[in-house]
Amino acid sequence: MRHDYIKAGDEIYRRSFAIIRSESDLTPWSGTAERVVVRMIHACGMTDLPKDVAMSDDFAASGEAALKSGAPILCDAKMVANGVTRARLPARNDVVCALDDARVPDLARELGTTRTAAAMELWRERLAGSLVVVGNAPTALFRLLEMLDDGAPKPAAVIGIPVGFVGAAESKDALAEDGRVPFLVVRGRRGGSAMAAAAVNALASAVE
Amino acid sequence: MRHDYIKAGDEIYRRSFAIIRSESDLTPWSGTAERVVVRMIHACGMTDLPKDVAMSDDFAASGEAALKSGAPILCDAKMVANGVTRARLPARNDVVCALDDARVPDLARELGTTRTAAAMELWRERLAGSLVVVGNAPTALFRLLEMLDDGAPKPAAVIGIPVGFVGAAESKDALAEDGRVPFLVVRGRRGGSAMAAAAVNALASAVE
Repeated sequence: MRHDYIKAGDEIYRRSFAIIRSESDLTPWSGTAERVVVRMIHACGMTDLPKDVAMSDDFAASGEAALKSGAPILCDAKMVANGVTRARLPARNDVVCALDDARVPDLARELGTTRTAAAMELWRERLAGSLVVVGNAPTALFRLLEMLDDGAPKPAAVIGIPVGFVGAAESKDALAEDGRVPFLVVRGRRGGSAMAAAAVNALASAVE
Repeated sequence: MRHDYIKAGDEIYRRSFAIIRSESDLTPWSGTAERVVVRMIHACGMTDLPKDVAMSDDFAASGEAALKSGAPILCDAKMVANGVTRARLPARNDVVCALDDARVPDLARELGTTRTAAAMELWRERLAGSLVVVGNAPTALFRLLEMLDDGAPKPAAVIGIPVGFVGAAESKDALAEDGRVPFLVVRGRRGGSAMAAAAVNALASAVE
């Protein structure tokens, strides 16, 4: 049995993006913002994603400019950090995930929260002007909001796309309603590391 | 502004799995197979996933036994390999992704296919009795079927969950219809590295 299928990577990309643009309602966005949503759809295979996407008006420009100026990309999960395509980054930006730091387990016990949320504390000194990317843990997104309440420096933009059933939707609503930092969220339960990394990859480069 | 949210990781897991089981139609599966589907739902946040899941009757037992006996886990993408929780593996199984192997770019040109599909060739000697996990590239799944046609040794089980718009649905249908190896697929466009890694993590351990 032989299968007939497209083997050229660039042709697969070209057709994929054409299908996405022909089937999705992308009218709320243009330019970089549109590119971000298209790439998130590409990562999840779902053309109905736009109905759950919410983005502040300043998100795309702020996130893009931050990356161009060398801002670090602070990720809540290793799968997110791993999904960021290094060759697309405009300024050899650092991609950071603090989850494996030896201080995290003790810090989590001390703060009474998840390891992922505790790891955010280790970002504090790099937060100013950064791109924060939460693709896994709602607790990390809630913790970020608490840190901002406590006077932590502001990131340039926050991609808040945790996935799941407990706290995910609530944490994303809280980020969007907070309004202090440029944000991108996917309302509801959907999200995850692949979508989050895809958003970073779209902000990083216009190449499709 | 203070947010009220659950911070205990084990409580978040417990509630998440309870919500998934209360909202999803899991009647086709029991035991390990049910656990696999539940964990895939957990990874994507979508309780309607079961309608697209197809699994051969021997998949769960064969995949679980392979891992217990020390089979390597051969992944098409680094995000898949990265999503496998090492502490859950029953026999310190190797988790392999050949994409960064220096031979891959030349091999891709030679075979006229994607780097991901070319990387499969480097698995050939480890295929017998392995757990193959395709979470990204339809071309990798098609290539696996071609290798089996050409007499490559059979894996113990194949998790075939590439995501996307060009070839993804077709590659998964082809795997399911092929029937030579125990398989798990998600029909249609949905899939991805997080779901694929979640299936491995469920096969690897009964702990939730």
